[in-house]
Amino acid sequence: MPVAQAVKDVLGSSSMIRKMFEEGAELKKKFGADKIFDFSIGNPDLEPPQAFHQTLLRIVTENATGSHGYMPNAGFPYVREALAHKASGEHGVELDFSHIIMSVGAAGALNTILKAVLDRGDEVIVPRPYFMEYRAYIANHGGRLVEASSDDDFNLDIDAIQAALSEKTAAVLINSPHNPTGRVYPQSTIAALAEILLRHGGKTGRFPYLIADEPYRELVYDGLTAPPILSAYPHSIVATSYSKNLSLPGERIGYIAVGPRNDDKATLIDALIYATRILGYVNAPALMQRCVAELTEVKAAVSVYAARRAAFKKVLDYAGLSYINPEGAFYIFCKAPGGFANDDGAFVDALKKQLILGVPGNSFGAPGWVRFAYCVSEEKIRNSAAAFKASVSGR
Amino acid sequence: MPVAQAVKDVLGSSSMIRKMFEEGAELKKKFGADKIFDFSIGNPDLEPPQAFHQTLLRIVTENATGSHGYMPNAGFPYVREALAHKASGEHGVELDFSHIIMSVGAAGALNTILKAVLDRGDEVIVPRPYFMEYRAYIANHGGRLVEASSDDDFNLDIDAIQAALSEKTAAVLINSPHNPTGRVYPQSTIAALAEILLRHGGKTGRFPYLIADEPYRELVYDGLTAPPILSAYPHSIVATSYSKNLSLPGERIGYIAVGPRNDDKATLIDALIYATRILGYVNAPALMQRCVAELTEVKAAVSVYAARRAAFKKVLDYAGLSYINPEGAFYIFCKAPGGFANDDGAFVDALKKQLILGVPGNSFGAPGWVRFAYCVSEEKIRNSAAAFKASVSGR
Repeated sequence: MPVAQAVKDVLGSSSMIRKMFEEGAELKKKFGADKIFDFSIGNPDLEPPQAFHQTLLRIVTENATGSHGYMPNAGFPYVREALAHKASGEHGVELDFSHIIMSVGAAGALNTILKAVLDRGDEVIVPRPYFMEYRAYIANHGGRLVEASSDDDFNLDIDAIQAALSEKTAAVLINSPHNPTGRVYPQSTIAALAEILLRHGGKTGRFPYLIADEPYRELVYDGLTAPPILSAYPHSIVATSYSKNLSLPGERIGYIAVGPRNDDKATLIDALIYATRILGYVNAPALMQRCVAELTEVKAAVSVYAARRAAFKKVLDYAGLSYINPEGAFYIFCKAPGGFANDDGAFVDALKKQLILGVPGNSFGAPGWVRFAYCVSEEKIRNSAAAFKASVSGR
Repeated sequence: MPVAQAVKDVLGSSSMIRKMFEEGAELKKKFGADKIFDFSIGNPDLEPPQAFHQTLLRIVTENATGSHGYMPNAGFPYVREALAHKASGEHGVELDFSHIIMSVGAAGALNTILKAVLDRGDEVIVPRPYFMEYRAYIANHGGRLVEASSDDDFNLDIDAIQAALSEKTAAVLINSPHNPTGRVYPQSTIAALAEILLRHGGKTGRFPYLIADEPYRELVYDGLTAPPILSAYPHSIVATSYSKNLSLPGERIGYIAVGPRNDDKATLIDALIYATRILGYVNAPALMQRCVAELTEVKAAVSVYAARRAAFKKVLDYAGLSYINPEGAFYIFCKAPGGFANDDGAFVDALKKQLILGVPGNSFGAPGWVRFAYCVSEEKIRNSAAAFKASVSGR
């Protein structure tokens, strides 16, 4: 048996998604990449901001002694201090450097958190739809993903989460701004969630962690602000990264922010540092740590994405498609039209015939929907209008 | 319960090592860092070579489009191709890019491999002494570390490994050049190991993987070459990094090289790429990938470490201490002298009184020994002679 059975099983079942990517590559080869409307992947096409480039160039030119060596597993203390200041502002709490653990992106942050808190058989409640990797992240550390349905407009369904709570619930994992729906959970929803978690903890003696996956926090539209998490619920932990707001997904730089009112906070922080070490991250990449510490005031290119969002909505309106108005992130979640009943797979196939690539909602636990990523040029989006219209009427 | 029980248990038991570090920090604060002979940690004091700095500066200055974005999870294909060429030469096999998976250092590589191949309850045989993190890496993925004793001179004890083999054996994990002993396993030993593994596989139908952890491969002395692994045994996988040879431990850049004669190689490679993705590494840091691809001909500063080794041996000879002659890496493994019987802890305490910091062999599964890291200045090593002598006679 050359590989682990659990991995082998997943390699088999994930072949649908791979098939999609392969078909996309095939289409690009056949028709030319410029002819394909590839809205499938959340890889920002925007280059990192000029401020990042200048900072990186200066740091590399200075070439300070020891800058590529080991530092404490949690990261350079001055970097953690800078990010503590940033996170304090976002979350309405007072954090110092000890609350911040630098991570290998948000995916590294989430695995670190789950390793630190999950006992075998523990449950993590995740509102549906959700980023498909969550299931594997939770399973990595012996946990079990428990789905909770969302409202019709993809806001959190507090009753559904309430019903999913059990004595095995170690955490509730939310993602806002949300992939794939673009939903930003309002402050009142976070407060309602905190209330049921506190009540559950009071009753069972086990307060579930609220884990907030927030790589899109800065990507919000229409003057919205993603509400604070750490001040809303004591037992909360934030995972985030610079992959989306600074367009650095390949560099794997992010961090964990631990809520200051967590029970036995010192042990939790020790466990997180231990987890980042023994999961083999050891520490977040040194050079990128030094860069992001100096870029806490640099903002994501929200206006660019806002213009793309507007263009995409116009295209979908033109094609007669209905969708969830994205409040944040760079995804638009679109309903498979009537002709395709509830079959997102069939709609994705019809789109493909028109050289449009999207991801079936089924992969996120939301059959009947399709996700389009608009981290591509506005021109490409505008040019897709006819193809969208044809895909709708094509069946 | 704020953290996972398994993590909580380890946090408790690892407090000995933390105590050592804390005491070291305390000593430095009390007497001044320059007064302390800190031989405890394997963090290279040498800066990365000038060629690294030049390459990094050029790549950053060029600022190519997309250079900080996502690439395939296994890494940039041209980077993998360059490293395939390098690894082919080292291991006497013909690898192409498909055999290379870029990793977040060697620790990331090892966790990726173990995730890909271990079923719950599988055993990994590790010769004692060993790098203490192996136990956690294996446990992360549901495996169990099975110790095998080594020869008196710390070469592999093939009979001991043979005796440890079972139907649950998924892999044998070796580290050469070796931390903490500096031993480089000779080609004949690797051949003998391959023979018993092939025989075991022939009998049981399950061929254990040979996983070789090789971050010190280039750090060998006296004209020695670390023998090839991938050509010695079909079912072999190499994990390595640039942490030691290019002094880049903080940047977390390494790679996995898969032996070309592995059974069902395509599935194994798919499993490794899947594992690197879902463990949250996603990919090795992009910028460092681009750097190391251009530095395959740059050699580690072996002569510097060789001079330090000579200085350290002179110091230990002067103090009347016996040790294993290091053939590679930058550690010297020293026997606790007669007065301390077999008690490495007591010897470490006596050393500390003379302001010398070393790591007790007990942490590596070798009580009675102490590890000194000589990735510190030659002057510091020479100046420690009197302190070493005093620590021996001090009891």
